[in-house]
Amino acid sequence: MPVITSRDHPLIKQLIRLEESSQYRKKTGLTLLDGIHLIQIYCSVLGAPENLIVSQAYIDDIENEHFLTILFGHTPPKLTVVSNLLFREISPVKTPSGILALIALPGLKKDVSNGKEMFSVLLETIQDPGNLGSILRSAAAASVKDVYLSKQCADAWSPKTLRAAMGAHFFLHIHEDSDLQKVAQQFSGTVVATSIQANRNLFEISLVGPTAFVFGNEGAGLSKEMIQAADENIVIPMPGKTESLNAAAAAAICFFEKVRQDRAYAAATTIGTK
Amino acid sequence: MPVITSRDHPLIKQLIRLEESSQYRKKTGLTLLDGIHLIQIYCSVLGAPENLIVSQAYIDDIENEHFLTILFGHTPPKLTVVSNLLFREISPVKTPSGILALIALPGLKKDVSNGKEMFSVLLETIQDPGNLGSILRSAAAASVKDVYLSKQCADAWSPKTLRAAMGAHFFLHIHEDSDLQKVAQQFSGTVVATSIQANRNLFEISLVGPTAFVFGNEGAGLSKEMIQAADENIVIPMPGKTESLNAAAAAAICFFEKVRQDRAYAAATTIGTK
Repeated sequence: MPVITSRDHPLIKQLIRLEESSQYRKKTGLTLLDGIHLIQIYCSVLGAPENLIVSQAYIDDIENEHFLTILFGHTPPKLTVVSNLLFREISPVKTPSGILALIALPGLKKDVSNGKEMFSVLLETIQDPGNLGSILRSAAAASVKDVYLSKQCADAWSPKTLRAAMGAHFFLHIHEDSDLQKVAQQFSGTVVATSIQANRNLFEISLVGPTAFVFGNEGAGLSKEMIQAADENIVIPMPGKTESLNAAAAAAICFFEKVRQDRAYAAATTIGTK
Repeated sequence: MPVITSRDHPLIKQLIRLEESSQYRKKTGLTLLDGIHLIQIYCSVLGAPENLIVSQAYIDDIENEHFLTILFGHTPPKLTVVSNLLFREISPVKTPSGILALIALPGLKKDVSNGKEMFSVLLETIQDPGNLGSILRSAAAASVKDVYLSKQCADAWSPKTLRAAMGAHFFLHIHEDSDLQKVAQQFSGTVVATSIQANRNLFEISLVGPTAFVFGNEGAGLSKEMIQAADENIVIPMPGKTESLNAAAAAAICFFEKVRQDRAYAAATTIGTK
């Protein structure tokens, strides 16, 4: 199998641009998945990627070759081998995994946004791709269906966000460039914003039934408009001497308080009907 | 004020080593704080740092100079100005804040570890400094007192961990290189481990009273020994199609479930005694 060794190869140039440029990703409708774990989840949900790019060392390892055969069976996707040195150059991480997948951005399924969302998340100007990815990961685990991102959010489909989300993208409906105020107004259930101007706390409101959580920028918090658009403004009670949480940690706490309340409600309802 | 412009200046060499080497930080008992927010929290708890290192651009800004005067009053710490180019080189982040503080690692206060801990966290082989910092930040907000780290954990006092923890370090007792099994055995309350081998879930156990949470490595989870050393092994119920959470998100959910239960218990007790 031929091995690409030149940085001037058109594919290599494309990979580097996909890695670096959000604009280029949007224009081409393509992005990159780094590492076999993420690629496996993608394949299990959406099938084979457009192109698998592996390092020479990766494909020389008999176990990896065996593994790829199992993963893709008789219809392997296009496989491209690049030299170890070059792979290091195109890899987004310090210790390259040895395997990248070039994928088309999955489109939104038609069955969403019909006003019947049960569990949604609205993100305003979340800037750190790691935070954004972690929020998506927690959202998928808590069974959130729709995630709406304002225009100023980090790119949901950047390789960094994808890495932090660990496959959550493929189980969520991600709506980029959303008009969050409009989404909040049209949401059928309770819109809950976390803000310092809150008069209630997370543990004293009911989260059973359709709920949309709204989170703001890591530093500046939510805009006045979004605070006003929410039905409830809440804080997470913090008994410690520091009153500060990472945006992704705050989101996880909110999501799983809803999970807890839903479970408690379901258990109570079951007992009631016995 | 003289401006350092040479990379060969002993202070610059020291700053770069402090940035990069955990061993050097341990040997010298020094570390670096990046950014004014973190430095402010440090100063409010522990007083002036050993040395403030600012970029030429930072000190040329009249507002910053005014701010430093307010922050330190009549006893400013040692102030060192370095050229903008050099500051960029020694700064750990892509967009340098313009201000670093050189600090001595705060020692553990004598009043801890007397077996009366109410809320502790045990961390086994948490490897990502960002995760570690976020866990410390959530812990401090939830009023955790003691954090015990196994030998294989990331360095709690690296500039990266400090940045992610946003000052949490200065409100916690951080015990590095701990024998976690021994800590678990000697803990006076309930030791709760999150592991996939759990038979109960987070929402069905009581977390009121002294509690120690144990979290394992991001990939491999907890060791058998720590699972056995725990009084309770639990999972966080995940109704979504993906069952995976970032280590810091999982920790935040656990900490604030205890906060919720403590508040509910306190409220019930108050009503009872009325």
